[in-house]
Amino acid sequence: MQSHWTRQNLLGIEELSREEIDTIHLQASEFKEALKQPHAKLDVLQGNLIVNFFLEPSTRTRVAFETAASRLSADTVLLEGGRSSTVKGETLRDTAQVLESMNADMMVIRHSCPGSAHYLAQVLDIPVLNAGDGAHEHPTQALLDTFTIREHFGQNLTGLKVTILGDILFSRVARSNIWALKKLGATVTLAGPATLVPDRFQSLGVHVTHDLKTALVDADAIMLLRIQHERQSSTHFPSLGEYRGLFGLNGARARYLKPKAIIMHPGPVNRGVEIDSTLADSAQSVILEQVTNGVAVRMACLYLCARGRQQQL
Amino acid sequence: MQSHWTRQNLLGIEELSREEIDTIHLQASEFKEALKQPHAKLDVLQGNLIVNFFLEPSTRTRVAFETAASRLSADTVLLEGGRSSTVKGETLRDTAQVLESMNADMMVIRHSCPGSAHYLAQVLDIPVLNAGDGAHEHPTQALLDTFTIREHFGQNLTGLKVTILGDILFSRVARSNIWALKKLGATVTLAGPATLVPDRFQSLGVHVTHDLKTALVDADAIMLLRIQHERQSSTHFPSLGEYRGLFGLNGARARYLKPKAIIMHPGPVNRGVEIDSTLADSAQSVILEQVTNGVAVRMACLYLCARGRQQQL
Amino acid sequence: MQSHWTRQNLLGIEELSREEIDTIHLQASEFKEALKQPHAKLDVLQGNLIVNFFLEPSTRTRVAFETAASRLSADTVLLEGGRSSTVKGETLRDTAQVLESMNADMMVIRHSCPGSAHYLAQVLDIPVLNAGDGAHEHPTQALLDTFTIREHFGQNLTGLKVTILGDILFSRVARSNIWALKKLGATVTLAGPATLVPDRFQSLGVHVTHDLKTALVDADAIMLLRIQHERQSSTHFPSLGEYRGLFGLNGARARYLKPKAIIMHPGPVNRGVEIDSTLADSAQSVILEQVTNGVAVRMACLYLCARGRQQQL
Repeated sequence: MQSHWTRQNLLGIEELSREEIDTIHLQASEFKEALKQPHAKLDVLQGNLIVNFFLEPSTRTRVAFETAASRLSADTVLLEGGRSSTVKGETLRDTAQVLESMNADMMVIRHSCPGSAHYLAQVLDIPVLNAGDGAHEHPTQALLDTFTIREHFGQNLTGLKVTILGDILFSRVARSNIWALKKLGATVTLAGPATLVPDRFQSLGVHVTHDLKTALVDADAIMLLRIQHERQSSTHFPSLGEYRGLFGLNGARARYLKPKAIIMHPGPVNRGVEIDSTLADSAQSVILEQVTNGVAVRMACLYLCARGRQQQL
Repeated sequence: MQSHWTRQNLLGIEELSREEIDTIHLQASEFKEALKQPHAKLDVLQGNLIVNFFLEPSTRTRVAFETAASRLSADTVLLEGGRSSTVKGETLRDTAQVLESMNADMMVIRHSCPGSAHYLAQVLDIPVLNAGDGAHEHPTQALLDTFTIREHFGQNLTGLKVTILGDILFSRVARSNIWALKKLGATVTLAGPATLVPDRFQSLGVHVTHDLKTALVDADAIMLLRIQHERQSSTHFPSLGEYRGLFGLNGARARYLKPKAIIMHPGPVNRGVEIDSTLADSAQSVILEQVTNGVAVRMACLYLCARGRQQQL
Repeated sequence: MQSHWTRQNLLGIEELSREEIDTIHLQASEFKEALKQPHAKLDVLQGNLIVNFFLEPSTRTRVAFETAASRLSADTVLLEGGRSSTVKGETLRDTAQVLESMNADMMVIRHSCPGSAHYLAQVLDIPVLNAGDGAHEHPTQALLDTFTIREHFGQNLTGLKVTILGDILFSRVARSNIWALKKLGATVTLAGPATLVPDRFQSLGVHVTHDLKTALVDADAIMLLRIQHERQSSTHFPSLGEYRGLFGLNGARARYLKPKAIIMHPGPVNRGVEIDSTLADSAQSVILEQVTNGVAVRMACLYLCARGRQQQL
């Protein structure tokens, strides 16, 4: 089974095969099981130095990668920068090659520019993991989301219906999840205001609806996306109040959902905007499960890319 | 003796018993002794992941907790934020639960809001240690201060006279120390300008004086508090020059002190404001001893709370 | 051979003997060899706590020291501050002594004030390593630069010609390299505009030229210095375009260089200002070798100072 992984980079979901996603999820299951032992620390990446290179603000993804590295006994170095800034006018390539030249073993990169992780994978010899590149991909988020869905609905997602609701237009989380869900056989519906969910997204092989009830009634899983406050002034975006009024998930609307449907959110959650507070804490919500799975999934990604690197040497 | 500790949280001094404070101090003594070996590293928290969650600026407390964790072989993750800010509009509870869901084993929290640590202890399953919550409590500071006093005057503080001098009104250090000192049997005097040391503090069972000589002559230990520059514009606060002129500890005034009295300060010290530079470096000053004891005391707190957690599982 | 090292501090190149530089380089060679094993982690500084105290912005030096510490199994704590700022009005000495009192074993300091590392070495008992003090010295940079030159031209640099080109006037990199190169027997030429390379530098025992061709034709190694954008408004400094036009290293000018001459740069590189992009990536460029050697050299400095400390106890 694990022979389905030979890559040293994790750049996006688009290029992964179904078997590769399976391999990551199987490995993540093993790590999740191992973490149930108190204070588990696996020595599989002992002596590895992982650079966390975050040029866009991040909290949970950064901490999750640091935690995953720590649980695998790797050492980490953190390099943070402002939004899309480079360091003292140095090019991104130069900064990355400098970090690589310090004998770093792997690099996790978040950058506001789509394609930045792919670019670094071309210019570096060491494994590169994409922790979010602009509006392009956020592969580990989609991997943990689909891992969570499989825990609830089984490995075979054929025919499972997943709705992604919210600010889809510039969402790397949506993009990566669309790829992952379709590869795993699920049916995907995108929902939200027409300005944020243009009909042309149908060309990705998904349904598009601007009617919330339609979006909810059939869904086995509903993925809410974070509403970016900073986009409020955009011409694409209605006011927060208008969004909440039309598309916010509240108790009344949640009654449209199937009883076994799960509610997901990549965080950080704006309680009272995209989701009402009681729903975020309800039995249907799997938001914190997603977080827990995020550590196991990132451990799997780090481990498999390190192994892929070894095989290519 | 150590059976006097069953808690998994360290939230404040107010709720601790005399026996619990004794247990922490005894454990801290053991750790302090162990640290005398060069490059000592104890493996008691091996595999533990401690989140240092500092939403107020901090240097020494943060570094002391990181150092304590490191000496106990725990791994740490740091999450810092601006003054009282939450992360991207996420609620404090959500951020904390996300960190817990990443399999963190303990959380150290500093926050500008009184009660924040107590609140997190209610919503989290893992141990929570209060590293300062607004003007409420700073329990590890009081524990290291009283540990230092006991090293100088013996375990029994009955009848020992301690003066706390300075900006008491909003001081969490003063508040925690008042609780700790009284539980250990010491007599506490609060001193400073009437605006910063209101007479109503007598209801806490302490003496209040606005006369510096009275505050000094009887004291076995004098705790200076940092004068917050940022409070200068407050209506409560005299000018720095006026404060120094009336209450700054200088050579002439130090002659009121008993020869064996010790001078304490939680830092950072404003030399030339609350204390003259030569006094801060004098033989009576135990300021750096406090810092050293702060690591041992925090090791004890981390260790005991981790053990308390184990007992409750 | 290693008996030539008895210091516990590394403050500058000026005070080092030729034999001491040799000892550092020999030790760095051993560490560099050891790092060729994948995921090498030496346990020589196990249990040591190293404080990285960076009061000036830094990326590569900070990461290199953290990486070096990690490869030697030391733990690190990071304390960063704004340019030359101290912490909450505390004096530099107080902050440093507080960190030392937390049982730190070594301190790496970067500060905008010349002499700051020397000052801390006087007030602290633990080893102090200078990671750059204003315009004064940057000893580990010069040690890695000369290490790199020796790898290319052999241990004996007598008669080797090295040109340092650019903004020499306030450059700690230039200053430390002048000392190191002369102690190792090389001949040093400083080159650049007269405002940035005053003739009075000849008193340091180096050549000064304002003619680029003269600077290049004889050189075995050419060290470019970073042009500080922030100095553009200075009266010393021509415009970036003017600098590039007169002194930027481009393909045409590189033809003046000997075929075996190497091109060095401490980074971060301003491509298109002090050096053209293709040259920075050419076979003559050793810029990334310098980075790799920087980790080994800093491991050697940390290790030797720790050993020097042991011998003095």
